[in-house]
Amino acid sequence: KKKKDFSFSNRGKTLEDELNETNEYYLQLGLAVIHKKPVPVQIVKVEYPSRSAAVIREAYFRTPSTTDYNGVWNGKYIDFEAKETENKTSFPLKNIHDHQIHHMSQVIKQQGIAFLILRFSSLQRYFVMRFESLLIFWDRMLAGGRKSITLQEIEETSFEIAPGAFPPIDYLPILQKL
Amino acid sequence: KKKKDFSFSNRGKTLEDELNETNEYYLQLGLAVIHKKPVPVQIVKVEYPSRSAAVIREAYFRTPSTTDYNGVWNGKYIDFEAKETENKTSFPLKNIHDHQIHHMSQVIKQQGIAFLILRFSSLQRYFVMRFESLLIFWDRMLAGGRKSITLQEIEETSFEIAPGAFPPIDYLPILQKL
Ligand SMILES: [Mg+2]
Ligand SMILES: [Mg+2]
Repeated sequence: KKKKDFSFSNRGKTLEDELNETNEYYLQLGLAVIHKKPVPVQIVKVEYPSRSAAVIREAYFRTPSTTDYNGVWNGKYIDFEAKETENKTSFPLKNIHDHQIHHMSQVIKQQGIAFLILRFSSLQRYFVMRFESLLIFWDRMLAGGRKSITLQEIEETSFEIAPGAFPPIDYLPILQKL
Repeated sequence: KKKKDFSFSNRGKTLEDELNETNEYYLQLGLAVIHKKPVPVQIVKVEYPSRSAAVIREAYFRTPSTTDYNGVWNGKYIDFEAKETENKTSFPLKNIHDHQIHHMSQVIKQQGIAFLILRFSSLQRYFVMRFESLLIFWDRMLAGGRKSITLQEIEETSFEIAPGAFPPIDYLPILQKL
């Protein structure tokens, strides 16, 4: 087994910050075109003050129908959801929503690549779990089993990423293995 | 040349409505997973009234960095922008933005499929123009040429779609030809 260097710390940044920086890095180098989707809002009232930008004065959050990130890499459709937990021993499945599972199932059927990026924030450990593995744990829960995935199960089924400075979360090399 | 039936009219619907219905149809039938991206907004102030949903009270529109629609079909990454014009003889290029051209160029480099769906609203005619063709007209404009694409040029370089009831704009069969 290759020894990994976990000395680098991105402490203080959110997982979203780290992934946005990573995607921006990939974009600048022409390695992949992957963006975070905007938060969907329903806009009800907009004001147009003279000589300044339009201001949204009433809007509501809508439930997304997809995951947060998608794009294209090397001719392949890429789709993932990013989740973090403060837990140290397991990842609680309540962080994942039905619509995300449903969407990723649809993506897989169209031969896209769907996965989860998991951050154990207090451990500073990152994993890429392919959707097919996630589904096994999800179905176990639906069948009445445990409502989380143990860290050991994640170690056994997922690919670990050592955090870095630039890019913070270099997940692209792992997609070759998925 | 095959004669097309243009008797069906979706008059009254926006192009966005028509495409959302079409994408929903594809999704239900398991033919493709393509969604419109939410409008990106920067949220500044949110109120949390007790016992009701959070209300966004101050937010601003941000410039998108991508096109409006993307997804996966048959293992391929799909990316397009939808535009309509009331013009009857040409499509004005001022409807297309730099960042959209830039984004679609990046998509093509990653071997995604990028195109434009054009609606001539007063003619009730719809076209799929591959990005590679659009780029020729775009570059002609940058070189000092005309700032629009004539309808005849569009007829010569693009694929016409006859509007239908369900789905309204059946663009998927055309992607086979792109
Ligand atoms: Mg998320
Ligand atoms: Mg648009």
